[in-house]
Amino acid sequence: MSLGNARLLAIAPSAIRTIHDRKRPSSIDLGMGQPSLKPDLGPFEAALGWVREHGSPYAPPGGLPELRERVAHIYGGHFNPNAAHVAVLNGSQEAIYLTIKALCDPATDHVLTTDPAYLSYRRCCDLEGVTCRTVALSARDGFAIRADALLGSLTPATKLIILGSPGNPTAAVMDEHEVRRLARGLLDRRGPPVYVAVDEVYRELTFTPKPYVSLLDYYPHAIALHSLSKSCALTGLRLGFFIGPAAAVEAIVRAHALIMLNVNMFAQHVALEIVRDPQRLRAHHAWYVAQRQLLLETAARVKLPIVEPQGSFYSLLALPDAWSSSEAAADHLLERYDVVTIPGVIFGAAAEGFVRLSWVAPPAALTQGLERIAEFCTSSKS
Amino acid sequence: MSLGNARLLAIAPSAIRTIHDRKRPSSIDLGMGQPSLKPDLGPFEAALGWVREHGSPYAPPGGLPELRERVAHIYGGHFNPNAAHVAVLNGSQEAIYLTIKALCDPATDHVLTTDPAYLSYRRCCDLEGVTCRTVALSARDGFAIRADALLGSLTPATKLIILGSPGNPTAAVMDEHEVRRLARGLLDRRGPPVYVAVDEVYRELTFTPKPYVSLLDYYPHAIALHSLSKSCALTGLRLGFFIGPAAAVEAIVRAHALIMLNVNMFAQHVALEIVRDPQRLRAHHAWYVAQRQLLLETAARVKLPIVEPQGSFYSLLALPDAWSSSEAAADHLLERYDVVTIPGVIFGAAAEGFVRLSWVAPPAALTQGLERIAEFCTSSKS
Repeated sequence: MSLGNARLLAIAPSAIRTIHDRKRPSSIDLGMGQPSLKPDLGPFEAALGWVREHGSPYAPPGGLPELRERVAHIYGGHFNPNAAHVAVLNGSQEAIYLTIKALCDPATDHVLTTDPAYLSYRRCCDLEGVTCRTVALSARDGFAIRADALLGSLTPATKLIILGSPGNPTAAVMDEHEVRRLARGLLDRRGPPVYVAVDEVYRELTFTPKPYVSLLDYYPHAIALHSLSKSCALTGLRLGFFIGPAAAVEAIVRAHALIMLNVNMFAQHVALEIVRDPQRLRAHHAWYVAQRQLLLETAARVKLPIVEPQGSFYSLLALPDAWSSSEAAADHLLERYDVVTIPGVIFGAAAEGFVRLSWVAPPAALTQGLERIAEFCTSSKS
Repeated sequence: MSLGNARLLAIAPSAIRTIHDRKRPSSIDLGMGQPSLKPDLGPFEAALGWVREHGSPYAPPGGLPELRERVAHIYGGHFNPNAAHVAVLNGSQEAIYLTIKALCDPATDHVLTTDPAYLSYRRCCDLEGVTCRTVALSARDGFAIRADALLGSLTPATKLIILGSPGNPTAAVMDEHEVRRLARGLLDRRGPPVYVAVDEVYRELTFTPKPYVSLLDYYPHAIALHSLSKSCALTGLRLGFFIGPAAAVEAIVRAHALIMLNVNMFAQHVALEIVRDPQRLRAHHAWYVAQRQLLLETAARVKLPIVEPQGSFYSLLALPDAWSSSEAAADHLLERYDVVTIPGVIFGAAAEGFVRLSWVAPPAALTQGLERIAEFCTSSKS
């Protein structure tokens, strides 16, 4: 008899949470991925109206048909035109987990992702016993995802590629050229198709001159992982979407039904109200533009070497040379300067030497936090 | 490269859902485990008030501290006095899944459950590759769970026993004598302790002369799996609890955080409002007593051989001898009599020869459904 699931026991607790548990009431939080915005109450009131009339019954395992259909129209792209291509899940976190759990067989399949990347891709692979390999992104290239590097790292065992665009922690957005090149390279390849899951939870938060280009428009085996958490300040709603080939959706829904039956009906009605008027998905965009502007201006003023964010609400900051360990630097920033940041290395070795800043704190706190980090950088050099 | 997760692919779609997909608008539904009651709106309004003030932030991974604390006081029994003994999960379904996923290692550990039992126990074991063995319950004994039968079936590999009390589909409640005997037998045993998870989602719906006795009062390695779905007509809320040893709760929360981060904050505030006034958990009891009375009176009047329910809102009906297959009988009942019932055999071979009736339809539909089933029984004998 065991102590429990050996793979679960082997996974270290989330370093992000460990850092946050050490946060003081006085701390300036540039760590957590949660905006200081509040959500629109209209969709909550609409959902309450629905409950008043209909009670709180089970939702269908794959989600409300109208919600699925509308999400397909908004995000599905060329290859995913209707409800059969969408599963409603408990946040994009469940979408990440089930993509690995349902689509991969630990005995034969490998996952390929980037270094750095959002921690969950690797952790979910570890939990399921699926081999996870990485392609290192280059700081000098702005941590851009390059199609050729991915294509060159494929093996016959690669079943799934997971990418974030906009990326966390990189804030980089894959551009049209790379998206097309990746699609073309995968289509030209022999052998069974490789799924590519693109974590697009920050899709509404892009700041590039051209509109976002999704792989779902170019590659039939592409999957998008979505959420209302970031676009609508609804992290606590736990409402996400898996969008992709109908056969993959079917496998995801079967696993979802076994694990948790279906998603909270109230949350689905909040989501339905939002996607009936898709402008709501971009309602906070102007706020983020202003926050980003404040980040860029303050960083320029106090001379902080940040990687300019193309999307998401993060930015990587290059540490002074004296700090070879981003964990030690983040620790020092918290202990001496009372600012929470996240060490780059926890997202992968290629982000060592950087800390991740989240720039969604209230403006005064953001400014003060950046000024304190600038002090820290200056004192590290002297 | 594979077609996906082989264990997932091998699990047959839920037979209950397949039957429900064949239901016509005219059908009388005595199949689904969902009451026709509506929930109290007060807790929803309180939750909306909270969102109005605080927005929709992430909840802590294990759930709101006050919610955990209050649930421990209500359900924790002797050994689980505080918040460290409770995890808030996405319905009891996730609690079942994570109990198997987090506490068992597929390489070494076995699960023991009853035949019949709620389908998910076995299906979650199948999904995780954990060997699941069963102890047959006896129709002649009213499908009662007997401690000696369980104790006699333990092997050195048994890590976890999963039981339902009140049982689904049996509607049997484990009595105090058997609960004490099981606790004593497990405590007297050599070797590492065996967890016993009791699915208590129908705990508020008991109709026995004596109050419900929980194993959590007698056995330190007992776990209770709970939900607000049945007690409060909140199936769509997806709010459940894992209650048990603190070390087990810690493992469950770690797995939960990896799979879906945390539970919907709105739902947690609905739950908090309910457990602040625990009488709300029994608010529907009188309605169920009346429904059960209608079931018993109608069954007696039309001479239906049902197993008298001690708890839950189900009852097993012994089929006429001509129907050796409960699947064929349920099929015939749907096609010819337009009544939805669930074949006993899908819950285990020991329930072959029975169909499960759910008696939470509106009273007129329940009466008419039972009358039609009586017609079916009469015509099967002639």
